[in-house]
Amino acid sequence: MVEVINDNKVSVVWPDHHTSVFDSEWLRRRCFSTAARQSLQEELFLNDRYYFDSKLNIPTGDYEEVLQDDQAALAWLLALRRDGIVRLKGAPRERGQVARLAERIGYLRLTFYGHTWQVQDKNMANNLAYTSNRLSLHTDYPALHFSPGVQFVHCISQAVEGGESEVVDGFHMVELLQREDPEAYRTLTSTQVDFTDMGRDYCDFLLQSKKHIIDVDRKGRVERINFNNATRDSVLDLPVHQVQPFYRGLKAFTDLMNRPENMVCYTMEPGEVVTFDNWRLLHGRRSYVSRPDSSRHLEGAYLDWDEVMSRLRLLRNIVHKHT
Amino acid sequence: MVEVINDNKVSVVWPDHHTSVFDSEWLRRRCFSTAARQSLQEELFLNDRYYFDSKLNIPTGDYEEVLQDDQAALAWLLALRRDGIVRLKGAPRERGQVARLAERIGYLRLTFYGHTWQVQDKNMANNLAYTSNRLSLHTDYPALHFSPGVQFVHCISQAVEGGESEVVDGFHMVELLQREDPEAYRTLTSTQVDFTDMGRDYCDFLLQSKKHIIDVDRKGRVERINFNNATRDSVLDLPVHQVQPFYRGLKAFTDLMNRPENMVCYTMEPGEVVTFDNWRLLHGRRSYVSRPDSSRHLEGAYLDWDEVMSRLRLLRNIVHKHT
Repeated sequence: MVEVINDNKVSVVWPDHHTSVFDSEWLRRRCFSTAARQSLQEELFLNDRYYFDSKLNIPTGDYEEVLQDDQAALAWLLALRRDGIVRLKGAPRERGQVARLAERIGYLRLTFYGHTWQVQDKNMANNLAYTSNRLSLHTDYPALHFSPGVQFVHCISQAVEGGESEVVDGFHMVELLQREDPEAYRTLTSTQVDFTDMGRDYCDFLLQSKKHIIDVDRKGRVERINFNNATRDSVLDLPVHQVQPFYRGLKAFTDLMNRPENMVCYTMEPGEVVTFDNWRLLHGRRSYVSRPDSSRHLEGAYLDWDEVMSRLRLLRNIVHKHT
Repeated sequence: MVEVINDNKVSVVWPDHHTSVFDSEWLRRRCFSTAARQSLQEELFLNDRYYFDSKLNIPTGDYEEVLQDDQAALAWLLALRRDGIVRLKGAPRERGQVARLAERIGYLRLTFYGHTWQVQDKNMANNLAYTSNRLSLHTDYPALHFSPGVQFVHCISQAVEGGESEVVDGFHMVELLQREDPEAYRTLTSTQVDFTDMGRDYCDFLLQSKKHIIDVDRKGRVERINFNNATRDSVLDLPVHQVQPFYRGLKAFTDLMNRPENMVCYTMEPGEVVTFDNWRLLHGRRSYVSRPDSSRHLEGAYLDWDEVMSRLRLLRNIVHKHT
């Protein structure tokens, strides 16, 4: 027997005569209708994306404001979630800013490259990023089975010549690939390839992973791009008849992302922190001229989406309570 | 044109007249045959498992030996990979030992419960683990989309009464479930449910995740168990006709793991560190009696499989070089 009793409570007497009393709001939140479930899931995970091409005006915020003001921090994280990239301006031009920004959220993710990492021209570089060469479009760290979800990069000093940044919306590229070259799309979503990384930094390491270049969920929605040619293993674990289709598919995907109409190009200014979705965006940089008297120096850090979404939900609760 | 030249090198002249010279060993390692690929992948990932039931004699190592001796450390990690659980005895009975053990590998994984966490009876507990109640079999932290791969728990002091540990081989349970109740197996591998966790510890948090209770890869091999009834959301994001099959499947799975013939029961001794695969094993503990003069205290830490496998590969290289 079900009846509404006082205070908008719902009383249920079960066949074994046990009685339960539920708050009606609590019950409503557990409604099994498709519409109710969809709106709750959207509120929890905010999976809507705004796909971009070269015409994107990168959303911009103020570094100090984001640290101090909850509304500014919420706007920052909402744009990061939806657009995939936000520039924060006005940070001090010294190390430690990406760590402060990570603490604003919760904590950063330690990796073999350290708590934070310095992108600059290094002797005996253990990573292509630590040279002045061009970096073609990639996602960071596919050699980890769970690559970092979010990346913060702070420009402490910029090269006098070169070093421009390039980004592409990988989720948008997947959509285009599926339309223009369904065979390549099928190959890259179904073929696992190996990534590898070894060296010594925070400590010594020898990583090996297997990844789909494009991760899609069981409903076919793209979840993550795993692509970094510098750490893709030269061992290809495929039957020989899949080798050429794989390279053809990979070329179709990289050709697509290198089209000028898909790529956003910008120059990081000293004191600027670029924050972006490393599961979604591919990023690169043009080569630059390294001079003894003017060195390029970026500091970076990783976070994961679980921690970012946790902070986003908490900020939303606080800001909505006050508005 | 392909020919073997001096020093066992292979020279290839391509149709465009470019010449490449390969080391024959390098080429052999890239052989596309099924057998060659299988053996290389096994060497890289060591995916063979030894499934256990209640008769398991938990592999045991010496804590100080593992810290100091590479061969002992390698044996520890190989057993952890293959059997899923290893006990290390002889650790000092004070905090800091799980962190030392994690540094032996690389680094530990920080979570909202801190770098390490103290399992003891706490006032205003933010987690059921921090009470003296029974903990039914579970994996840790399914509320994170990438739950920690490995768990270290150090017993600093044990309860005078109760507090026995229980573990079950989740991969073995999946095998049994698939055989005994294929419908339940299909439900738990195809239905995503929500996990949630909120509170304040290392900092404030509000986590929400969607997971399959049993994660299988595209070839149907089990990869990970995600199950913790204490953090399973009371909101169930399913069409109403899937609700009862889901609960029925979940009950079949938990009934299976609670059968005495499947469960290993043991008592942690002070100075012992249990290290286990959190993707594979479900663990629990019986309730205990908390007395003001004799408190139970465990310290725990998380790591991920990428870092553990990295250390395992490096140790194997060192040990094999010297034998």
